[in-house]
Amino acid sequence: MSKEDKQAKKAENAALREETKALREKLVGHQQALRAKGLPVIVLVEGWAAAGKGSLIAELISEIDPRFYNVVSPVITPEAECRYPFLYPYAKAIPENGKIMFYDSGWMEDTVRKYLHREITKDQYKQRIRSVNEFERQLRDGGYLILKLFVDIDRDEQRKRMEALRSNYETEWRVTREDLWQHREYKSFRETYDSFMEKTDKPVKWHRLDGGNRALAARDAMKLLLELVETGLTEGRYVGKPFKESFPLLEMPKLRDVDLSPCLTDEDYRKELKKLQKRLGELHNAIYRKKIPVILCYEGWDAAGKGGNIRRVAKPLDPRGFDVKPIASPEPHELARQYLWRFWTRLPRSGHIAIFDRTWYGRVMVERLEGFCSEDDWRRAYNEMNEFERQLTEWGAVVLKFWIHIDQDTQLQRFNDRQNTPEKQWKLTEEDWRNREKWPQYEEAIDEMLQKTSTKNAPWIIVESNDKKYARIKVLRTVIAALEKALEERI
Amino acid sequence: MSKEDKQAKKAENAALREETKALREKLVGHQQALRAKGLPVIVLVEGWAAAGKGSLIAELISEIDPRFYNVVSPVITPEAECRYPFLYPYAKAIPENGKIMFYDSGWMEDTVRKYLHREITKDQYKQRIRSVNEFERQLRDGGYLILKLFVDIDRDEQRKRMEALRSNYETEWRVTREDLWQHREYKSFRETYDSFMEKTDKPVKWHRLDGGNRALAARDAMKLLLELVETGLTEGRYVGKPFKESFPLLEMPKLRDVDLSPCLTDEDYRKELKKLQKRLGELHNAIYRKKIPVILCYEGWDAAGKGGNIRRVAKPLDPRGFDVKPIASPEPHELARQYLWRFWTRLPRSGHIAIFDRTWYGRVMVERLEGFCSEDDWRRAYNEMNEFERQLTEWGAVVLKFWIHIDQDTQLQRFNDRQNTPEKQWKLTEEDWRNREKWPQYEEAIDEMLQKTSTKNAPWIIVESNDKKYARIKVLRTVIAALEKALEERI
Repeated sequence: MSKEDKQAKKAENAALREETKALREKLVGHQQALRAKGLPVIVLVEGWAAAGKGSLIAELISEIDPRFYNVVSPVITPEAECRYPFLYPYAKAIPENGKIMFYDSGWMEDTVRKYLHREITKDQYKQRIRSVNEFERQLRDGGYLILKLFVDIDRDEQRKRMEALRSNYETEWRVTREDLWQHREYKSFRETYDSFMEKTDKPVKWHRLDGGNRALAARDAMKLLLELVETGLTEGRYVGKPFKESFPLLEMPKLRDVDLSPCLTDEDYRKELKKLQKRLGELHNAIYRKKIPVILCYEGWDAAGKGGNIRRVAKPLDPRGFDVKPIASPEPHELARQYLWRFWTRLPRSGHIAIFDRTWYGRVMVERLEGFCSEDDWRRAYNEMNEFERQLTEWGAVVLKFWIHIDQDTQLQRFNDRQNTPEKQWKLTEEDWRNREKWPQYEEAIDEMLQKTSTKNAPWIIVESNDKKYARIKVLRTVIAALEKALEERI
Repeated sequence: MSKEDKQAKKAENAALREETKALREKLVGHQQALRAKGLPVIVLVEGWAAAGKGSLIAELISEIDPRFYNVVSPVITPEAECRYPFLYPYAKAIPENGKIMFYDSGWMEDTVRKYLHREITKDQYKQRIRSVNEFERQLRDGGYLILKLFVDIDRDEQRKRMEALRSNYETEWRVTREDLWQHREYKSFRETYDSFMEKTDKPVKWHRLDGGNRALAARDAMKLLLELVETGLTEGRYVGKPFKESFPLLEMPKLRDVDLSPCLTDEDYRKELKKLQKRLGELHNAIYRKKIPVILCYEGWDAAGKGGNIRRVAKPLDPRGFDVKPIASPEPHELARQYLWRFWTRLPRSGHIAIFDRTWYGRVMVERLEGFCSEDDWRRAYNEMNEFERQLTEWGAVVLKFWIHIDQDTQLQRFNDRQNTPEKQWKLTEEDWRNREKWPQYEEAIDEMLQKTSTKNAPWIIVESNDKKYARIKVLRTVIAALEKALEERI
């Protein structure tokens, strides 16, 4: 570079830095509004090793009140990671309303590296891309403002930077073996990054930054972030529209057509129960060793017998390998995040069984009927939940959803029985009576839910529970059959 | 064994099982009361490999409503573990009010094994024993009902059981290399278990169970658990009394004697700030590489300038290596557990910096003055917090606590300034004015806190902040000196 060029370059950079500073001041000026409006922001920073992702983030956050943001750099231990769905660490880290979360590389880097290392197959790679698109859309539709940046440098620049880092004792450790491998495989990485970005450019767009020019990259990133925030503040919280997507759905009867007469004699029940519990205990051992995650979902009418049913399933299980997750009303820190977050964070490790006592389907039942979410929210949720469950089954989970069913007369009997039995009174609340009055509305909502979310991989099973004994045996049989099938398929 | 003996044995076991069943029914009958009274229960089950800890727990939980209990078997990855204090995984898992948590081995097994493997020194072993006693006492004093069981078997019995397990393909994997090592080193384990239990028999007593006789062990365990629960229900939630313990305390001035006149010129400030921030950035790199955890605690008067001070410290830090933890009022799931839980769960990984914007000292300030806890609670808290911080420093953390100090006039000025500046109005709430009226009571509480909790290892630093510039430089200098010292000591 000639002397003049150098000087021109210097002047240019100084101008860029001034511009960045002005943009930053605007951004900082918005932070309080962002908090007041409760808008959550996600900034994903992907890019090449040594491209300057870390210092770009440092640039973006400088001056922002540290109470308003966090940075995650998923330091994922290989063991911990492979025992959860690949999106788990990222989903766990989504910000609460009014906060900004910076991901110092994330689901793209993880996916591209694993693919190039051949730790995942081509099919799994494609599944991941679909999951990523779903994940990002769900967050956007849930009101998240999302910025995706890719810090780009060419091969020469990467070599120069790695050499510079490695020539200094203080910084040498920053270049990992993995990074050197990336440099050698620059061409494959380039292709895969490009194809990944092309395939995940919707619903949330990628922005490429010129990592070769730090001042320029910082200015561009700051500008994009500011635009995102200002659009959010002007337009207000986005609520995604319901959308069409086809899942392989099972045909389900209407609740009113379900025959609730099936029952069992005490003797048959006891015999069956013993036999099935023994078998389930054996299978638990086997799925533990094969590291198959199992997710059992319970929904049902009040007093339908969920608790007792769960107890019969839990009884033969090794307590170290299962958990019951009781789902009550969301707490404030849960309400402050996308609605599936509190289920993502409760997923079982592979090889473990999670029994959900009520589930994410609250969205299309109580939240729908009580107006706790908007109509768009619950209408969109059918597909979102199907997607979520597909991600779980692609991870390898067995997912079964039980609707514990009784009729209105039986419920009334059981309510009265609870009311008249001192030890049971705690089980009956005013809310139960109120919900009972809304039986027809609930029935309609449940019918719709069963029609729209009983997928082949995560089916609903209607469990006739006027006779609780029959219901328990049916659930045990269903679980056993599903586990046996999963074990067979994964020899 | 003769035929008669065998028959007698069989009859005896049948009788024990009947008894266990009766006890269990009583226990199950209490679960609702336990929930209603919000009593949390911890059952620690320690013991020999192959002694039957798992099946004992299965026995205890059978019939309990799964919504009321959980089982943790700390599957700790070596990497994750060594980056937190040793009690971290156990503290994280304490149950919420009204629930029972079973620990399938815990802090004892972890400590004994590490000691015998020489992964911790004799001194560290002793520190752990003290920490365990503190941990258990704090939980007990916080209203936790705690049962500690040790399932004992002799060497012959262990050999027999291991052989039986290993002879069967289905169970062979249950005997680990570690277990075989224990069997070879049975004598050392016996001695260490014994000495550990002897030294941790107070404040919470150990109970030994005869693992050689499963029916007997189950009966005894059930009886002990029932007694614990019944005592808790009869006597109500226990609140620990304040106690005396001596810590190496630093002498602290009274707040009213602090000279608040120190200030800096703009020029000196800018020069110093730049120099110190550069240095702090370098040190952050160094402590990251040496894996030193750093905990910076901020407390101070409203409008004292905590936020701006934190921002100046955070600015030069690599965003991947630090977090600001804003502490607001506890949420319901936090209130449902011992008060330090929400800080245990926010500890930084080793090599990271956590900046707490308000801290556990809320206990002896706002909670004391607003009556959010009992007098015994906050009086006890001084020592409990000293213990907690000693555990942190023994883990290797640098702990600094800043009291950002201003006088009443300065506060009034800043409040008025906030009120008159639209962009700053959000920072000022009604509560701030209310707190201001209680200045004398707060001052008294703060003076007491500074006297009682400024330990050598986790000192309070009073930061004169009438001039915010001076305050920022003082904090930066203090942090830098502490990090330099820590780095020197740990070459």
